[in-house]
Amino acid sequence: MQYPEPIAKLIESYMKLPGIGNKTATRLAFYTIDMNEDDVTNFAKNLISARRDLHYCSVCGNITDEDPCEICRDTTRSQDMILVVEQPKDVMSMERMNDYHGLYHVLHGVLSPIEGKGPDDINIANLIKRLQKTPAKEVIIATNATPEGEATAMYISRLIKPAGIKVTRLAHGLSVGSDIEYADEMTLLKAVEGRQEI
Amino acid sequence: MQYPEPIAKLIESYMKLPGIGNKTATRLAFYTIDMNEDDVTNFAKNLISARRDLHYCSVCGNITDEDPCEICRDTTRSQDMILVVEQPKDVMSMERMNDYHGLYHVLHGVLSPIEGKGPDDINIANLIKRLQKTPAKEVIIATNATPEGEATAMYISRLIKPAGIKVTRLAHGLSVGSDIEYADEMTLLKAVEGRQEI
Repeated sequence: MQYPEPIAKLIESYMKLPGIGNKTATRLAFYTIDMNEDDVTNFAKNLISARRDLHYCSVCGNITDEDPCEICRDTTRSQDMILVVEQPKDVMSMERMNDYHGLYHVLHGVLSPIEGKGPDDINIANLIKRLQKTPAKEVIIATNATPEGEATAMYISRLIKPAGIKVTRLAHGLSVGSDIEYADEMTLLKAVEGRQEI
Repeated sequence: MQYPEPIAKLIESYMKLPGIGNKTATRLAFYTIDMNEDDVTNFAKNLISARRDLHYCSVCGNITDEDPCEICRDTTRSQDMILVVEQPKDVMSMERMNDYHGLYHVLHGVLSPIEGKGPDDINIANLIKRLQKTPAKEVIIATNATPEGEATAMYISRLIKPAGIKVTRLAHGLSVGSDIEYADEMTLLKAVEGRQEI
């Protein structure tokens, strides 16, 4: 005996999501059957709308429902600073800080020879074009502190530094509130290297 | 800055699912944007269809898209055995065993005084009605091996045994392939109590 078709198909759909296997998909599908009907209808609508109405901003590559995106259109933001991140999600993290008022550029990935990802596979060409049109004073590279993130930062830095643009990288060190006891060696090393006079 | 509305709404929808918090919902929503368009459309359709087309079988309470369900309609199954489970999912687990050919009855829960769940809140009345109409030879109670599951099994047994129906309960003991070393005390106790001559 198989599950009735409607639930078998829903389980299949849930399993297409990342990190959701057969058991979780089954649990979610059974939960869906008992959900409020309006919630399910809205869920379906929101899925369609997110897939259809969201695009990447043609300027910075961030996710948006209008082009250019809200941040790129905002003339009150300082136009001569660009913060480069890996993913659209990172833009939101930076915005939550409420302290950065420049522009962004989203790479949609990092250089990764292992995965066969070269400079043409991420949004670097657009960054160069942007800088040629309106040269920024400073480009802050905020790729993650992984080997790939570091390599990507170095690559971009070497590309744009010759144009006289100041290129900076986020500081690495101990998280605020963290214990030295539990810090890994690389983080400690970066914290010592980046020590500042008080 | 907020997320664009379509993604904010989709995150909200994902968060209505059990065990999915803000971070996972955000990850799933961003993943959805990059998904194959057909997959997203089907996902939406399957959500609607599962919510709309699935019902509980009026006989056994199992989930079905036709009433009565496939199992209740199947006259090749032995009609004088009813296996009582807590949830529709449990029916599938039993069917996977490929060895039971009787009927089922789904309680949709267990008696739980703590949660205020009494006999009227689970599908017991229907079971009694079923047995009055066509008396089964045996009712196997397969509620989970929890205090609530045990109490529910005892309650049902006392209700239907006076009618001369044989009432059995699934055996408790060591899982096949498991180590005695890692078994908990209750399981070991049940295994010793239920020991059989070889």
